[in-house]
Amino acid sequence: MNELERIARLSKLLAPPDQGAGVELGIGDDAAVLSPPSGGRVVWTIDAQVEAVHFRRELVSFEDIGYRATMAAASDVAAMGARPWCMLSSLVLTESLDDASFESIVRGVSAAAGRIGAPVVGGNLSRGDGLAITTTVLGTCSRAISRGGAKPGDHVQLAGPVGLAAAGLLALQRVVSGDRVDPAIAAWRRPVARVAEGLSMASIAHACVDVSDGLARDAGHLAKASGVRVVLFREALVSDALGDASAAIGADPLELALHGGEDYALVCTSAVDVPGFTRIGIVDEGAGVWLRSPDGEAEILPRGFDHFA
Amino acid sequence: MNELERIARLSKLLAPPDQGAGVELGIGDDAAVLSPPSGGRVVWTIDAQVEAVHFRRELVSFEDIGYRATMAAASDVAAMGARPWCMLSSLVLTESLDDASFESIVRGVSAAAGRIGAPVVGGNLSRGDGLAITTTVLGTCSRAISRGGAKPGDHVQLAGPVGLAAAGLLALQRVVSGDRVDPAIAAWRRPVARVAEGLSMASIAHACVDVSDGLARDAGHLAKASGVRVVLFREALVSDALGDASAAIGADPLELALHGGEDYALVCTSAVDVPGFTRIGIVDEGAGVWLRSPDGEAEILPRGFDHFA
Repeated sequence: MNELERIARLSKLLAPPDQGAGVELGIGDDAAVLSPPSGGRVVWTIDAQVEAVHFRRELVSFEDIGYRATMAAASDVAAMGARPWCMLSSLVLTESLDDASFESIVRGVSAAAGRIGAPVVGGNLSRGDGLAITTTVLGTCSRAISRGGAKPGDHVQLAGPVGLAAAGLLALQRVVSGDRVDPAIAAWRRPVARVAEGLSMASIAHACVDVSDGLARDAGHLAKASGVRVVLFREALVSDALGDASAAIGADPLELALHGGEDYALVCTSAVDVPGFTRIGIVDEGAGVWLRSPDGEAEILPRGFDHFA
Repeated sequence: MNELERIARLSKLLAPPDQGAGVELGIGDDAAVLSPPSGGRVVWTIDAQVEAVHFRRELVSFEDIGYRATMAAASDVAAMGARPWCMLSSLVLTESLDDASFESIVRGVSAAAGRIGAPVVGGNLSRGDGLAITTTVLGTCSRAISRGGAKPGDHVQLAGPVGLAAAGLLALQRVVSGDRVDPAIAAWRRPVARVAEGLSMASIAHACVDVSDGLARDAGHLAKASGVRVVLFREALVSDALGDASAAIGADPLELALHGGEDYALVCTSAVDVPGFTRIGIVDEGAGVWLRSPDGEAEILPRGFDHFA
């Protein structure tokens, strides 16, 4: 297919049953036309997934590549306590990528868009030397939750797994398979933006961040933006699924929980418990991210993913 | 600089004097937070510029790369008759790109953002094997002009150059310099989104498209979306600047005017003349794009840029 044929195919594969609330003009013009909800706010994010950096083709299917790129972007909207509204998807495709693979990527994008209820209303197609998917998402909310509102005394709360996706990637790299690693592999291949949990924390949380680069690193962003210290409880961080997967691949589950990325869990802080979240720590005066165990407290230096370190 | 240091630098280089109308939270959180104008519409686009496809480093400076990527995206908003409101910029940078080059790219983005009056309120940084800049732009308008409203009898009108950027690229590739090609080289290195012209056509035009891939190809999109035939007047297509540059580089100016891309001119159709535009043709019943000369009319088959043809 040439570029125009691919755009026509995109339009067909991505077309939702109805165009979506507030979407006046979707795929096919210079820009999408939207009618924003009156009186509310919109949140807006962009995220790129690049071959050889965020994924390797031998470890995921093309459909997974489209799915996880879309979820990764939508997770930023969930972390603001907003509802994903619609998306634009910009695909950079290699010259050798065949039509079936192209369609698989688009099916993955479409499946993720369907799951979070935000249609793809436009995008861009380009050739390039490596595959890349860049997704921009608009979300709607009445009040957005930033990283900067955590207060001493807040409970630190988690929705979704941490470390599990990193365990899944390790299992794939080490060619470990079986029941004990299947949930981890699924977590890495098909992460889920925590939209419902984000909406449930939006009315009560003081601060929120999604865990894309590792719990220690992302909790550190929240701590820094809020001018507080985040204390994580060691015994609350390793889920049964992570324990099982770690045992099967021979990895330290606490290391994975603290520094593994790409689970897209949400971490929020609030004075009261938030439905759908579990307590994993407290907010205190000070700075940095600390781990509390029966032996005492120690600061955790971020080791999560840095593109240029 | 590591990733966090680069984000801090980005934030500083891109920070506008004031945050921008309707921008509640800019760079530094999971997403930007915006307050859309009440009662209006927003238009939304994304565009990618990829190394070795859209540019080669030996022909443009890093600042030019940032500038033209930003303008290319903003042009889609101008083509809808909307005012650029704000942008997100996603940069994929090679591991070897040094800090000075990174800052030059950002300065180019910032200069373009300043020129069109739309602040960069967020973005994304990633490593990759090739440089790429993906820009998403939101614009505001009361009524958006699509490609699909052209009516038989409309005047086809042009704002901005066509073919000049392509002549500039040829001059660079053929190492031709001097007064006669300087405007062409500037058109390729520093294209301008036609925001003022877009706003001036918005209240009266029936259809509009920007010329990113070549006049014949983009006018063809408009013709197809509108279900009409576009007839271009041969004598109206070659500007003096394009004639001079073509002579200097030994190229056919009409070929460049019809098939050269990346000028980001606007083509609109309307029943009356639009200020800032010049007449280059008419809309008729039928299909396709045709060239009218003293010898008669001939259909022009699109030869502009196709990423996968």
